[in-house]
Amino acid sequence: MSTAAPTGFDAVEVIRTKRDGKELSDGAIEWVVAAYTRGDVADEQMAALAMAILLNGMTRREISSWTDAMIASGTRMSFDAESLRGRPTTDKHSTGGVGDKITLPLAPLVAACGAAVPQLSGRGLGHTGGTLDKLESIPGWRATLTHDEFLAQLGEVGAVVCAASDDLAPADKKLYGLRDVTGTVESIPLIASSIMSKKIAEGTGALVLDVKVGSGAFMKDVDSARELARTMVALGNDHGVRTVALLTDMATPLGLTAGNALEVRESVEVLAGGGPPDVVELTVTLAREMLAAAGLEGVDPAERLKDGSAMDVWRAMIAAQGGDPDAVLPTARETSVVAAPADGVLVGLDAYAVGVAAWRLGAGRARKEDPVQAGAGVEMHAKPGATVRGGEPLFTLHSDDPDRFARAEEALAEAVTIAPEGSRPELGPLVIDRVSD
Amino acid sequence: MSTAAPTGFDAVEVIRTKRDGKELSDGAIEWVVAAYTRGDVADEQMAALAMAILLNGMTRREISSWTDAMIASGTRMSFDAESLRGRPTTDKHSTGGVGDKITLPLAPLVAACGAAVPQLSGRGLGHTGGTLDKLESIPGWRATLTHDEFLAQLGEVGAVVCAASDDLAPADKKLYGLRDVTGTVESIPLIASSIMSKKIAEGTGALVLDVKVGSGAFMKDVDSARELARTMVALGNDHGVRTVALLTDMATPLGLTAGNALEVRESVEVLAGGGPPDVVELTVTLAREMLAAAGLEGVDPAERLKDGSAMDVWRAMIAAQGGDPDAVLPTARETSVVAAPADGVLVGLDAYAVGVAAWRLGAGRARKEDPVQAGAGVEMHAKPGATVRGGEPLFTLHSDDPDRFARAEEALAEAVTIAPEGSRPELGPLVIDRVSD
Repeated sequence: MSTAAPTGFDAVEVIRTKRDGKELSDGAIEWVVAAYTRGDVADEQMAALAMAILLNGMTRREISSWTDAMIASGTRMSFDAESLRGRPTTDKHSTGGVGDKITLPLAPLVAACGAAVPQLSGRGLGHTGGTLDKLESIPGWRATLTHDEFLAQLGEVGAVVCAASDDLAPADKKLYGLRDVTGTVESIPLIASSIMSKKIAEGTGALVLDVKVGSGAFMKDVDSARELARTMVALGNDHGVRTVALLTDMATPLGLTAGNALEVRESVEVLAGGGPPDVVELTVTLAREMLAAAGLEGVDPAERLKDGSAMDVWRAMIAAQGGDPDAVLPTARETSVVAAPADGVLVGLDAYAVGVAAWRLGAGRARKEDPVQAGAGVEMHAKPGATVRGGEPLFTLHSDDPDRFARAEEALAEAVTIAPEGSRPELGPLVIDRVSD
Repeated sequence: MSTAAPTGFDAVEVIRTKRDGKELSDGAIEWVVAAYTRGDVADEQMAALAMAILLNGMTRREISSWTDAMIASGTRMSFDAESLRGRPTTDKHSTGGVGDKITLPLAPLVAACGAAVPQLSGRGLGHTGGTLDKLESIPGWRATLTHDEFLAQLGEVGAVVCAASDDLAPADKKLYGLRDVTGTVESIPLIASSIMSKKIAEGTGALVLDVKVGSGAFMKDVDSARELARTMVALGNDHGVRTVALLTDMATPLGLTAGNALEVRESVEVLAGGGPPDVVELTVTLAREMLAAAGLEGVDPAERLKDGSAMDVWRAMIAAQGGDPDAVLPTARETSVVAAPADGVLVGLDAYAVGVAAWRLGAGRARKEDPVQAGAGVEMHAKPGATVRGGEPLFTLHSDDPDRFARAEEALAEAVTIAPEGSRPELGPLVIDRVSD
């Protein structure tokens, strides 16, 4: 909490200023965020302000100042070169998608290339999965580390993926919970400052943003994804974090699995040099961007997947957080196969629908206090472009509760588009665009 | 509280609908207002919705439905012809101004002309006074009546001015408190539905709205005042209340006093056949409108001021609520005279500044739980158009705390414009426009 927060501001005046389409001063922003965090500005006042921001927008200066205020609500971490053994820090953030397990192979891969990856991550909500939920399906693995454990692991292993402490941008945590119940999530200034306040406070020196676009993503169209990417790239660079963003496709799920343990298994395949081509491509592309942003040119991450060094870091990273990298991963108690409805070419596999199916099977949560099933999820046996035969398996559903299969199948019935043989899916590139400052 | 409120709605969906500029269904409005009143929709959710309404507006149908929902949150009163001894009901509502004591002579005057005036009134906040605060300066008078006392007085005396019961549009009471702290007061749909839900629930058959325009009023310009008037007139007529509105000037205070007991004294002068010409003009004009709306043509209210019958009703009305109409009114412990700064013609006397001065002297309150001083206020010795002499008294300030005089004088220094002799003030008409359906 800022101890030198400016005074003399009034919540109603701040709300009215933004409501009337005027710019908020840096002092007003610093005050209102700090006062909200300590409870002197009430939830209903911040809700009205958030709606006014959503509808009237914020300038680049206001967004930067809002982000500063959220960072200042907690502790901004920093790393000394000695504890990192000279490694530069670099991190990645994804805006969330279906089957997006990229962090799992990516963090150890980038560490195997010589960088330090200090990733504070989150849990899933709704149809998108969360990295911590996925890793928690590994027996013994724990998401919570002390600050000293975090620093030690970052120096020794080169990669840490763990839960953020309560002291990392607490204003964002409080504000995010409020936005979730007040219809004020969909504001680019508020999304950008929420993500970037945590990433800047985390202390990384470089950052690659994976901004997802498509039905399974938060941003459904390229224009709004590009605006979000530009806003976050500007924020990062304004705050001394070398930041670039990739816009990547989320019209169809990443890889062949959506679900916690299912995605860990697929990630381990990638680390072993195999795995689905789209997951490998995105992992390697993001690794190159992270290394370039950290100033580590001349290292080829694809090599580090092949030579087993990324796998070595993975095993060390999991073990350092209490996990057993050799343990058998949990499986769901029941499975059910969904067959292709006809012969033809799979031309469409909707990411949102697959995400909803996985969520309904128990892989995701509706409220943040709900538990998730480690083994639940959707296994895909074909991706767009594949020829399928009617009656042959298209999906295998996994769940501890067979009652859940029917509603998951309903979602999947909407997901699949099969066209006559000889058709071609309209597949765009996996990486749609790159945004730098 | 509606017992048949529709279910199946979700607060976030309702907020998002209005946020995205779409119309809310009648069912959604009924649900959200009822759920808010019983606490199932949280303050922060209603605050976000109120901001979305303020910025994106509501259609006539939505405003009507919102008003219905606020009425349905409590009891809608009705009167039977027998208990009223055949009198038609008619009421007036003012949007609030400085020195606006018109209800005090008006209610007994209209009752003296044969109508029944069932006025549920409010207290002052900020720079505008409240009718109940003014009447409470009369020794013994009480604002709170039981329902039976209210009905009996309305039948016997023909006029009641008292506090609204907690069961009159409780949704509005809760929502108004929320809007006050969330910068969402200045929304014409929300202002109109707030005022009209109470007036419709009050059970009056006819209603005249006095929509004030100018520095001392809530609406500073004629266009927004006209929009508010049209919205309220439509709402009233849609709900079976014959409603008309007058737009009246509030650039300069009404009469020569602003303050509780000071305004009671001036009102009694009007009832005695004297008083300032602007107060008399507006009282008689509004009385004619109230009588016409109630179908009582052919009675001249000006006559009822002259013949003492309005004064008789006043005395009965005050006595019925425990007040002593012959009691000496309270006076402030201290007075201070403010002299005219120069010779010339008083061409401007700003209503807002005079209102602030009266408030600072103790006549008004900053928060609704604050007390008010019965004797405090501003007495004006000249109105625009008058010739003044430097050094001669322009105002007398009244307060129990002499410490308050300096800040009141500061406000008044801004209020006064004196031009060379021979100048003429730019005085518009007292009644600017009339709005009917």
